[in-house]
Amino acid sequence: MSEDQNVVYIGRKPVMAYVLAVISYMNTPDAKEVVLKARGRAITTAVDVAEVTRRRFMQKLQIDKINIGTEELTEQDGRKRSVSTIEITLKVKPTP
Amino acid sequence: MSEDQNVVYIGRKPVMAYVLAVISYMNTPDAKEVVLKARGRAITTAVDVAEVTRRRFMQKLQIDKINIGTEELTEQDGRKRSVSTIEITLKVKPTP
Repeated sequence: MSEDQNVVYIGRKPVMAYVLAVISYMNTPDAKEVVLKARGRAITTAVDVAEVTRRRFMQKLQIDKINIGTEELTEQDGRKRSVSTIEITLKVKPTP
Repeated sequence: MSEDQNVVYIGRKPVMAYVLAVISYMNTPDAKEVVLKARGRAITTAVDVAEVTRRRFMQKLQIDKINIGTEELTEQDGRKRSVSTIEITLKVKPTP
Protein backbone atom coordinates (compact mmCIF):
# COMPACT_ATOMS: atom_id res chain seq x y z
CA MET A 1 0.00 0.00 0.00
CA SER A 2 1.35 3.41 -0.95
CA GLU A 3 1.97 5.80 1.92
CA ASP A 4 -0.30 8.47 0.50
CA GLN A 5 -3.33 6.28 0.02
CA ASN A 6 -4.85 7.43 3.29
CA VAL A 7 -4.52 11.14 2.48
CA VAL A 8 -7.54 13.15 1.37
CA TYR A 9 -6.56 16.47 -0.22
CA ILE A 10 -9.18 19.12 0.52
CA GLY A 11 -9.89 21.70 -2.17
CA ARG A 12 -12.87 23.66 -3.43
CA LYS A 13 -15.49 20.93 -3.67
CA PRO A 14 -18.42 20.87 -1.23
CA VAL A 15 -17.72 19.45 2.24
CA MET A 16 -19.82 16.34 1.58
CA ALA A 17 -17.64 15.30 -1.38
CA TYR A 18 -14.69 14.93 1.00
CA VAL A 19 -16.78 13.39 3.78
CA LEU A 20 -17.77 10.64 1.34
CA ALA A 21 -14.11 10.14 0.34
CA VAL A 22 -13.19 9.69 4.02
CA ILE A 23 -16.06 7.27 4.67
CA SER A 24 -15.30 5.14 1.65
CA TYR A 25 -11.60 5.02 2.50
CA MET A 26 -12.34 4.09 6.11
CA ASN A 27 -14.55 1.25 4.90
CA THR A 28 -11.67 -0.47 3.09
CA PRO A 29 -10.18 -3.43 4.98
CA ASP A 30 -7.49 -2.55 7.55
CA ALA A 31 -8.03 1.22 7.29
CA LYS A 32 -7.13 2.68 10.68
CA GLU A 33 -6.62 6.37 10.01
CA VAL A 34 -6.99 9.04 7.38
CA VAL A 35 -5.19 12.37 6.98
CA LEU A 36 -6.95 15.49 5.68
CA LYS A 37 -4.58 17.97 4.04
CA ALA A 38 -5.53 21.50 3.03
CA ARG A 39 -4.03 24.90 2.49
CA GLY A 40 -5.25 28.47 2.32
CA ARG A 41 -9.02 28.97 2.17
CA ALA A 42 -9.60 25.20 2.14
CA ILE A 43 -8.42 24.96 5.77
CA THR A 44 -11.94 25.81 6.94
CA THR A 45 -13.34 23.07 4.70
CA ALA A 46 -10.89 20.55 6.19
CA VAL A 47 -12.13 21.35 9.70
CA ASP A 48 -15.74 21.03 8.48
CA VAL A 49 -14.96 17.64 6.91
CA ALA A 50 -13.41 16.34 10.15
CA GLU A 51 -16.32 17.58 12.25
CA VAL A 52 -19.12 16.40 9.96
CA THR A 53 -17.52 12.98 9.46
CA ARG A 54 -16.98 12.17 13.10
CA ARG A 55 -20.20 13.73 14.41
CA ARG A 56 -22.72 12.67 11.83
CA PHE A 57 -21.34 9.57 10.15
CA MET A 58 -18.50 7.78 11.91
CA GLN A 59 -18.64 8.19 15.67
CA LYS A 60 -15.84 5.65 16.00
CA LEU A 61 -13.40 8.21 14.56
CA GLN A 62 -11.53 10.64 16.77
CA ILE A 63 -9.11 13.45 16.06
CA ASP A 64 -5.67 12.03 16.60
CA LYS A 65 -3.55 15.06 15.79
CA ILE A 66 -3.68 18.43 14.08
CA ASN A 67 -0.62 20.11 12.61
CA ILE A 68 -0.43 23.53 11.02
CA GLY A 69 2.40 24.89 8.91
CA THR A 70 3.46 27.21 6.12
CA GLU A 71 4.28 26.41 2.50
CA GLU A 72 6.06 28.68 0.08
CA LEU A 73 4.36 28.84 -3.31
CA THR A 74 5.87 30.39 -6.44
CA GLU A 75 3.34 32.36 -8.47
CA GLN A 76 3.27 32.26 -12.27
CA ASP A 77 5.06 35.62 -12.33
CA GLY A 78 7.87 34.18 -10.17
CA ARG A 79 6.94 35.94 -6.95
CA LYS A 80 6.83 33.91 -3.77
CA ARG A 81 3.86 33.73 -1.48
CA SER A 82 3.42 31.96 1.84
CA VAL A 83 0.31 29.92 2.44
CA SER A 84 -0.82 28.26 5.67
CA THR A 85 -1.49 24.53 5.74
CA ILE A 86 -3.29 22.10 8.01
CA GLU A 87 -3.13 18.33 8.47
CA ILE A 88 -5.85 16.64 10.49
CA THR A 89 -5.41 12.96 11.33
CA LEU A 90 -8.60 11.03 12.07
CA LYS A 91 -8.16 7.65 13.71
CA VAL A 92 -10.40 4.81 14.82
CA LYS A 93 -10.92 4.98 18.60
CA PRO A 94 -9.11 2.20 20.43
CA THR A 95 -11.54 -0.43 21.72
CA PRO A 96 -11.38 -0.46 25.51
CA MET B 1 -6.63 38.47 36.01
CA SER B 2 -9.74 37.36 34.16
CA GLU B 3 -9.55 33.98 32.49
CA ASP B 4 -10.38 35.36 29.09
CA GLN B 5 -7.74 38.01 28.98
CA ASN B 6 -5.40 35.82 27.01
CA VAL B 7 -7.95 34.97 24.31
CA VAL B 8 -7.81 36.66 20.91
CA TYR B 9 -11.04 36.25 18.95
CA ILE B 10 -10.33 36.07 15.24
CA GLY B 11 -12.85 37.66 12.88
CA ARG B 12 -12.79 39.47 9.56
CA LYS B 13 -9.98 41.93 10.11
CA PRO B 14 -6.68 41.51 8.26
CA VAL B 15 -4.25 38.91 9.65
CA MET B 16 -1.81 41.59 10.86
CA ALA B 17 -4.44 43.18 13.13
CA TYR B 18 -4.58 39.94 15.15
CA VAL B 19 -0.83 39.35 14.97
CA LEU B 20 -0.34 42.73 16.62
CA ALA B 21 -2.91 41.85 19.31
CA VAL B 22 -1.00 38.64 20.07
CA ILE B 23 2.36 40.42 20.19
CA SER B 24 1.12 43.16 22.48
CA TYR B 25 -0.55 40.67 24.81
CA MET B 26 2.59 38.52 24.94
CA ASN B 27 4.62 41.59 25.87
CA THR B 28 2.63 42.15 29.06
CA PRO B 29 4.36 40.95 32.25
CA ASP B 30 3.87 37.26 33.07
CA ALA B 31 2.13 36.42 29.78
CA LYS B 32 2.95 32.78 29.03
CA GLU B 33 0.36 31.75 26.46
CA VAL B 34 -2.37 33.08 24.24
CA VAL B 35 -5.40 31.31 22.73
CA LEU B 36 -6.70 32.14 19.25
CA LYS B 37 -10.40 31.38 18.80
CA ALA B 38 -12.21 31.41 15.48
CA ARG B 39 -15.17 29.89 13.72
CA GLY B 40 -16.33 29.41 10.15
CA ARG B 41 -14.38 31.26 7.49
CA ALA B 42 -12.15 32.89 10.12
CA ILE B 43 -10.52 29.51 10.86
CA THR B 44 -8.09 30.07 7.99
CA THR B 45 -7.24 33.50 9.38
CA ALA B 46 -6.55 31.97 12.82
CA VAL B 47 -4.05 29.54 11.28
CA ASP B 48 -2.44 32.43 9.37
CA VAL B 49 -2.16 34.48 12.59
CA ALA B 50 -0.48 31.58 14.43
CA GLU B 51 1.97 30.95 11.58
CA VAL B 52 2.86 34.59 10.90
CA THR B 53 3.31 35.37 14.61
CA ARG B 54 5.61 32.50 15.42
CA ARG B 55 7.59 32.55 12.16
CA ARG B 56 8.09 36.23 11.56
CA PHE B 57 7.76 37.95 14.93
CA MET B 58 8.01 35.75 18.02
CA GLN B 59 10.21 32.71 17.43
CA LYS B 60 10.00 31.93 21.14
CA LEU B 61 6.33 30.94 20.67
CA GLN B 62 5.32 27.41 19.81
CA ILE B 63 2.01 25.75 19.10
CA ASP B 64 0.96 24.08 22.31
CA LYS B 65 -2.35 22.59 21.24
CA ILE B 66 -5.03 22.83 18.57
CA ASN B 67 -8.64 21.87 19.17
CA ILE B 68 -11.45 21.82 16.68
CA GLY B 69 -15.15 21.58 17.41
CA THR B 70 -18.68 22.45 16.35
CA GLU B 71 -20.99 25.18 17.62
CA GLU B 72 -24.71 25.39 17.01
CA LEU B 73 -25.82 28.86 15.99
CA THR B 74 -29.42 30.03 15.83
CA GLU B 75 -30.12 32.23 12.83
CA GLN B 76 -32.33 35.30 13.04
CA ASP B 77 -35.17 33.29 11.49
CA GLY B 78 -34.85 30.68 14.25
CA ARG B 79 -33.19 27.97 12.14
CA LYS B 80 -30.16 26.22 13.55
CA ARG B 81 -26.85 25.99 11.77
CA SER B 82 -23.67 24.19 12.75
CA VAL B 83 -20.38 26.00 12.43
CA SER B 84 -16.88 24.61 12.91
CA THR B 85 -14.55 26.19 15.44
CA ILE B 86 -10.83 26.16 16.17
CA GLU B 87 -8.75 27.03 19.22
CA ILE B 88 -5.01 27.38 18.81
CA THR B 89 -2.90 27.79 21.95
CA LEU B 90 0.46 29.50 21.49
CA LYS B 91 2.91 29.16 24.35
CA VAL B 92 6.37 30.41 25.19
CA LYS B 93 8.93 27.64 24.56
CA PRO B 94 10.35 26.26 27.80
CA THR B 95 13.93 27.40 28.33
CA PRO B 96 16.16 24.31 28.38
